[in-house]
Amino acid sequence: MILAIDIGGTSSKFGLVDAAAREISAYEKFDTREAVGAHGLESFLKERIGHFLEKHPDIRGIGLGFPGLLSKDRRTILELPNIPGADQLPILDRLSEQFPGVPIKIENDANCATLGEHRMGAYRDVNDFLLVTLGTGVGSGLIIDGQLFTGARGNGLELGHILVGREKTLEEQIGLQGFLSYAEARLSNYSQTTRLRSDRLNGKAIYEAAVQGDPLAASLFDYLGTLLGEGLVAAVRLLDVTCILLGGGLSGAFEFIYPGLKKVLESRLPGYYIEDLRIKKASLGNDAGLLGAAGLLLPAS
Amino acid sequence: MILAIDIGGTSSKFGLVDAAAREISAYEKFDTREAVGAHGLESFLKERIGHFLEKHPDIRGIGLGFPGLLSKDRRTILELPNIPGADQLPILDRLSEQFPGVPIKIENDANCATLGEHRMGAYRDVNDFLLVTLGTGVGSGLIIDGQLFTGARGNGLELGHILVGREKTLEEQIGLQGFLSYAEARLSNYSQTTRLRSDRLNGKAIYEAAVQGDPLAASLFDYLGTLLGEGLVAAVRLLDVTCILLGGGLSGAFEFIYPGLKKVLESRLPGYYIEDLRIKKASLGNDAGLLGAAGLLLPAS
Repeated sequence: MILAIDIGGTSSKFGLVDAAAREISAYEKFDTREAVGAHGLESFLKERIGHFLEKHPDIRGIGLGFPGLLSKDRRTILELPNIPGADQLPILDRLSEQFPGVPIKIENDANCATLGEHRMGAYRDVNDFLLVTLGTGVGSGLIIDGQLFTGARGNGLELGHILVGREKTLEEQIGLQGFLSYAEARLSNYSQTTRLRSDRLNGKAIYEAAVQGDPLAASLFDYLGTLLGEGLVAAVRLLDVTCILLGGGLSGAFEFIYPGLKKVLESRLPGYYIEDLRIKKASLGNDAGLLGAAGLLLPAS
Repeated sequence: MILAIDIGGTSSKFGLVDAAAREISAYEKFDTREAVGAHGLESFLKERIGHFLEKHPDIRGIGLGFPGLLSKDRRTILELPNIPGADQLPILDRLSEQFPGVPIKIENDANCATLGEHRMGAYRDVNDFLLVTLGTGVGSGLIIDGQLFTGARGNGLELGHILVGREKTLEEQIGLQGFLSYAEARLSNYSQTTRLRSDRLNGKAIYEAAVQGDPLAASLFDYLGTLLGEGLVAAVRLLDVTCILLGGGLSGAFEFIYPGLKKVLESRLPGYYIEDLRIKKASLGNDAGLLGAAGLLLPAS
């Protein structure tokens, strides 16, 4: 049994992962700000891990995902934009001192989700893929030759922060906030009939309207797919990857995002890159990060 | 002594490289189209290599750079856009059959130039860097942990082909042809005094005008640096590289390209990425590709 921990900017999850069965038990979820607030991230982790180890003596390893920059040797948190007080925290050493004898590994959260897809998802046999998560932010992670690739210093694969167009990053445009702002602007200028309402504009409502044939809703996802495609041209040209998986909340609208995305890639990439390129929906949903954190303790298959 | 061969779309070079002295001797240069034209790339290579081996029995390895896509196992040419008839050519096997007992290695030409900078240039001690060549095209290659990184299938690092802005690739805009078209358009609309003349518009003339304080000339390189910087944001975010080397003909104007480039990177990249980022001029000039082809036969330092 592996204790998996997925620290997010908004919520943090704990769970016991049975690697063989790919099941999560003893699941706990916290509001990160509340949980970390009073005593800081290190105290919070020590307290909850201590609790888990006491109740579950069969835990044989701990994997943690963090939403931010880590040292290349994966011992120290460099910077977590949404969690104050954790910068330059040598978290691996601190936890290892507190819990000697238990193997502990840490990784960036998007990399955990990527590892989860590879070690425990439907893409175990795929040797290289880029996972792109479309949610509050736009995250990404890469598997090459069956291994996580994280760039020269360990903090690459930030697809959400490349420029698409000359003014804004991909995330600024198709992260949830940017996407909803765009939807709002389009809706307020829209003169035809639509099921969308400005007081109920969220990803789910837009998706449901698209399913019911609403042309404005469909065109919003087409816009999202087009911008994502332009960003992915950079990823494919630099990384020569043959499979792209879309995860995160907005990937629920995969069928409406895919056509615009595909069109851009086909018009911008020559045969060599496009012929073997597969674009698929990720398989693990919200548990990807937790499963991948556990996957840090598993050997590559 | 290593026989180094740099096959380019325009010209092809041969030379004997003394790895210890980093010197090139018995240099030969051919017009690629003429040389390859009649009998094809394979025959041309066999004929010239045979000649070199006969005259220089101390050759202990052969390294070749090709301007295009290679198989991941580096045995087969997949596609050379500017050299007809070489697609799907199993060049390594063909040459090894002809010249048994001589170690032979092949690599993409931009990767050869990158390897040249790392194994034989001034950047031998730099553990990770991105080389960007600004010439007829915009090429790039990457060293990570002292090794060439070429992406999942071996043909990544095509920085020139990522989109900058939503319409055009980086190379379409700041490759030599795109850059000179832009210069021509700016010149034809320029109402102030300038040293630039539309009938003598080339990289050297623009550089010389910039050196003499011509504001239009300087602003053209600033434009080039700005677009390059926008493309490099993607490279830095995806690859987390800490050093960027500029090579190729237009990098002669480094001092005029650098300010615009630096400004974009500083405004677009947060502290972690920008604080340790060095931007330097490449050290090897036109010989980088030939030296790097020889470097294919040398162990990593």
